[in-house]
Amino acid sequence: MGIDPGLTRCGMGLVEGTVGRPLTLVDVNVLRTSADQPVATRLVTIERGINAWLEEYHPDAVAVERVFARSDSSTIMGTAQASGIAMVAAARRGLPIALHTPSEVKAAVSGSGRADKAQVGAMVARILRLPTPPKPADAADALALAITHIWRGGAQARLDAAVAAAGRKS
Amino acid sequence: MGIDPGLTRCGMGLVEGTVGRPLTLVDVNVLRTSADQPVATRLVTIERGINAWLEEYHPDAVAVERVFARSDSSTIMGTAQASGIAMVAAARRGLPIALHTPSEVKAAVSGSGRADKAQVGAMVARILRLPTPPKPADAADALALAITHIWRGGAQARLDAAVAAAGRKS
Repeated sequence: MGIDPGLTRCGMGLVEGTVGRPLTLVDVNVLRTSADQPVATRLVTIERGINAWLEEYHPDAVAVERVFARSDSSTIMGTAQASGIAMVAAARRGLPIALHTPSEVKAAVSGSGRADKAQVGAMVARILRLPTPPKPADAADALALAITHIWRGGAQARLDAAVAAAGRKS
Repeated sequence: MGIDPGLTRCGMGLVEGTVGRPLTLVDVNVLRTSADQPVATRLVTIERGINAWLEEYHPDAVAVERVFARSDSSTIMGTAQASGIAMVAAARRGLPIALHTPSEVKAAVSGSGRADKAQVGAMVARILRLPTPPKPADAADALALAITHIWRGGAQARLDAAVAAAGRKS
């Protein structure tokens, strides 16, 4: 499960599969909260939406976009707060949590850490065999996070296995 | 209940009383988490500590320090995440949540929005009739938030009452 945290729009994407096999879209959604509401209320809405998915889908792992202080400062506080809510929701259930930076995600799905939103959306559509790029961008970003996590996690798992095998041989 | 959010140290202070009466310290604590642990684990520790107090003390309201993007950027992400956790913990229970800025808190307890940590600690000790300033500063800041909330809330309540009374008279 990939989560693109945000206070106004929080993307959630669920992808099934393993490295070397076609990946499948399970579900995608964008939680929206109104700026008219208090931040605490908005965060509770986001927590409920994330919890509902964790309970329904029981993902194997949760990948959250890593937030940096240098990002757009007008929304960064809400994004950081939403990312904290996402991490706690997953950690409470003992799920593995990975943080991937935006450039790691772009590089994983498009081959370039500087890919723009349209390129990411197009690649997500191609990887998941969707007729059109997921909209809005938060939906595509959440799916890209999930894809990145499967691919990077898979590579890491193979590396760990190779190291373990080498250890047994020596 | 005042909460000075932070990932390494999260201050919690509980103060009882009303405007115009001496305020009383009920409890004060600083939740600490190690930088060796994953952020998600640290946030869960903070959530548990806050929840434990909310369950034990049933505060009437929760005051959380308002976090700004312009603060020290090395710790701002963790502070924002911890503040989100604090707000959600309170909002989930339907408690009123107030955000006060550091300068509002300093002004409320010391008369100056530019008071330093030592002045805030000294004033918190005087207001709560403590023999020495609470240590560390996060503990004093959490108590100062609780004091500020009682005083500002009280002033607001009196204002509301006066407006309501004027409305009845007219």
